[in-house]
Amino acid sequence: MTAIVTPTLTIEAFLELPYVEGSPAWEYMDGVAIQKPMPKTRHAILQKRLLIEIDNHSETYTALPELRCTFAGRSLIPDVAVIAWNRIPVNEVGEPEDNFMQAPDWSIEILSPDQKASRVIDNLLHCIRYGCQLGWMIDPDDYSVLIFAPQQEPNICRGACQLQVLAGMDLQLTTEQVFAWLKINKG
Amino acid sequence: MTAIVTPTLTIEAFLELPYVEGSPAWEYMDGVAIQKPMPKTRHAILQKRLLIEIDNHSETYTALPELRCTFAGRSLIPDVAVIAWNRIPVNEVGEPEDNFMQAPDWSIEILSPDQKASRVIDNLLHCIRYGCQLGWMIDPDDYSVLIFAPQQEPNICRGACQLQVLAGMDLQLTTEQVFAWLKINKG
Repeated sequence: MTAIVTPTLTIEAFLELPYVEGSPAWEYMDGVAIQKPMPKTRHAILQKRLLIEIDNHSETYTALPELRCTFAGRSLIPDVAVIAWNRIPVNEVGEPEDNFMQAPDWSIEILSPDQKASRVIDNLLHCIRYGCQLGWMIDPDDYSVLIFAPQQEPNICRGACQLQVLAGMDLQLTTEQVFAWLKINKG
Repeated sequence: MTAIVTPTLTIEAFLELPYVEGSPAWEYMDGVAIQKPMPKTRHAILQKRLLIEIDNHSETYTALPELRCTFAGRSLIPDVAVIAWNRIPVNEVGEPEDNFMQAPDWSIEILSPDQKASRVIDNLLHCIRYGCQLGWMIDPDDYSVLIFAPQQEPNICRGACQLQVLAGMDLQLTTEQVFAWLKINKG
């Protein structure tokens, strides 16, 4: 994990940094710019499948990869941000505005082996505190999904555990179904 | 992390394993015996100071290191288990029973660099689900404390954040005070 600690770094200055939209993505919290780890194969497969499954099972929401969400003093880039279409600001020609300045409705993070779980959880809780309805931390090394929602204890799901999705979304997924996506040689 | 996976391992059989009380401690969850990592220096300092601080600020509760708590299908050994004196079963000669078969009132885990955060959180949530009032996951590499309590979202504390303790306990600690215990050469 790369972190740049400059006590005077404001979120406005952060967003102007020349490398901030480079790859892997940079996030900002509490005066610190932190680069996300370079996504690996398992990360990419899970991210892609989630985008497809969520989009296929919802008219109301769209799932977006690596969308920068800047709100309440942080600038975060969930691996998958699920946002209601009607919350995406549109410009005068009917296209989405480039900057999304709210919490997503559902934030999904896929933990990388070299990523700090505490930091990822911190960012999911920040989303929940500022209007996000659901947070997932997928841990491919542990075959678990840790689920956050407002005003409730988190829930950790393994195996046949049905994963909580957004209210009104017609998507039924178990934890083992998600990790089965990683088995590429099923014949 | 060492794990022994034997699908037929029951909790009763686990507790009879010859090495189960060896060091580092073995825990049991979902048919799997998992050995905790060998504690390192920072872990030991935090554990010891917490034991002292909690005992010094409570008549009602006692803080115990590495106490095996066996309940609801798991056998866990929190780094610090805080338990009300009146919940500790006593034998006919007035001494504590050797086996504690409930969740502690407060479970504290100190994350080791080679320990899976998801597993630690899973065990803290198991405690909360079965009667524990408070769970802490201290992450010395992240200088954060992740706090769990029943029916609420977790809270992540850093810096001057006041750490939630058990109701009625006269203990005031900030996150930075806890991590300042690690600075041994303060002159």
